[in-house]
Amino acid sequence: MGHYKIVIEYDGNGYYGWQEQEELPTIQGAIQDAIFQFCGERVIVHGAGRTDAGVHALAQVAHFHLIRDSSPDEVLSALNHFLQHTKITILSSELVDSDFHARFSAKYRSYIYTIINRKAHLTHDKGYAWHVIDYLDTSLMQAGAEYLIGNHNLESFRASSCQAHSARRSIEKLQVTRDGSEVKISITAKSFLHNQVRIIVGTLRKIGNGSWSSTKIPEIISARRREAAGPTAPSCGLYLSAVDY
Amino acid sequence: MGHYKIVIEYDGNGYYGWQEQEELPTIQGAIQDAIFQFCGERVIVHGAGRTDAGVHALAQVAHFHLIRDSSPDEVLSALNHFLQHTKITILSSELVDSDFHARFSAKYRSYIYTIINRKAHLTHDKGYAWHVIDYLDTSLMQAGAEYLIGNHNLESFRASSCQAHSARRSIEKLQVTRDGSEVKISITAKSFLHNQVRIIVGTLRKIGNGSWSSTKIPEIISARRREAAGPTAPSCGLYLSAVDY
Repeated sequence: MGHYKIVIEYDGNGYYGWQEQEELPTIQGAIQDAIFQFCGERVIVHGAGRTDAGVHALAQVAHFHLIRDSSPDEVLSALNHFLQHTKITILSSELVDSDFHARFSAKYRSYIYTIINRKAHLTHDKGYAWHVIDYLDTSLMQAGAEYLIGNHNLESFRASSCQAHSARRSIEKLQVTRDGSEVKISITAKSFLHNQVRIIVGTLRKIGNGSWSSTKIPEIISARRREAAGPTAPSCGLYLSAVDY
Repeated sequence: MGHYKIVIEYDGNGYYGWQEQEELPTIQGAIQDAIFQFCGERVIVHGAGRTDAGVHALAQVAHFHLIRDSSPDEVLSALNHFLQHTKITILSSELVDSDFHARFSAKYRSYIYTIINRKAHLTHDKGYAWHVIDYLDTSLMQAGAEYLIGNHNLESFRASSCQAHSARRSIEKLQVTRDGSEVKISITAKSFLHNQVRIIVGTLRKIGNGSWSSTKIPEIISARRREAAGPTAPSCGLYLSAVDY
């Protein structure tokens, strides 16, 4: 018997997100299938974040419980063997206490959103970044981002379908950096509302290109209406980059 | 009439290299076709480096001559319009003196070779990096690389099919760095022999994993036989990163 914590990297293209869906390829479904192929056990793999279709992960974390006795290394090799032709790879595997829960034990989740900010269409980065043509001033974006850091009611920054009871969330870090034509938005929080990062990015883009002033952010927060914020940025630029426990 | 210099980014996957080949998709062929669609002129696009099948470019440089009078911006927009569904993009376009030759005027060419050095199979990086499982000690690789810097007869480091008259080449810079599981080999020289970078990488890998001592490099250089060096690293990790004039 063992309670395993695994760290997972995946390319979200071609998957209908993390969460298992009947008849559709998902990350959770693929890992559960690999476990079944390895040891014949049908288990649920609990992920720290339920990433949407097209969203990538550099280090998603998940846990699951097996009746079979296996070393973490054996689990790692076996899962990667059965996942070798997929765009999902297990980076590490370890035995953890049985009260460890990938989702509920998480202290912080971090995401990185990548924008390629140039006129020319994308080549290598297609499907892995958001292509934004209008020039983005990252110092304006950072000025806007500062208003979001801290504890706020983020009703304006969640999908209408979001099922969380409260829209109050604490953003620990929100940083906008540029390296050539690549603009990265890094964000860390205990937890996120549905589409929160992508709506923040879509809003910061409107500040970066001068459509909106950075001081509009407090107004958007106060409005507590989804329509007050910018559009939802596409999923392809989003990476779940770390989960801390 | 105009003599144009363009900078090109491309994803080498799916192309049979730079050089035009009948009936096969190539980078040069695709750009020449885009020019024809734009202005009806059948011209030759001369590239600074004739990258092999599967090799990528972050900033390949090329030139061509048009009878039609067009601004560089018009050329840029038109070519990207006709290339928009390809994995080739034109980053910039400018008018240059008629004696500018992308290949012969180049002072330095720089390549970056990317290795992902870990056990787990690749996801996002598949086709964009060489997956090496055996642990690579980059300080040993750098020690080996030092022997290659400078002017040498690099007979041991060129493909048997290489048609250059002399195998003497001057390597200006050869640097091995690691960031997590990503190992990058950066190399700059006036010009390169066929497969030179990939054979250097295949050789440094054998030093990095301890199969060979770094002091074997001077012996390999002296041997002047292709068989003395390591295997040719795969094309997918190689990027033409800059051409200086």
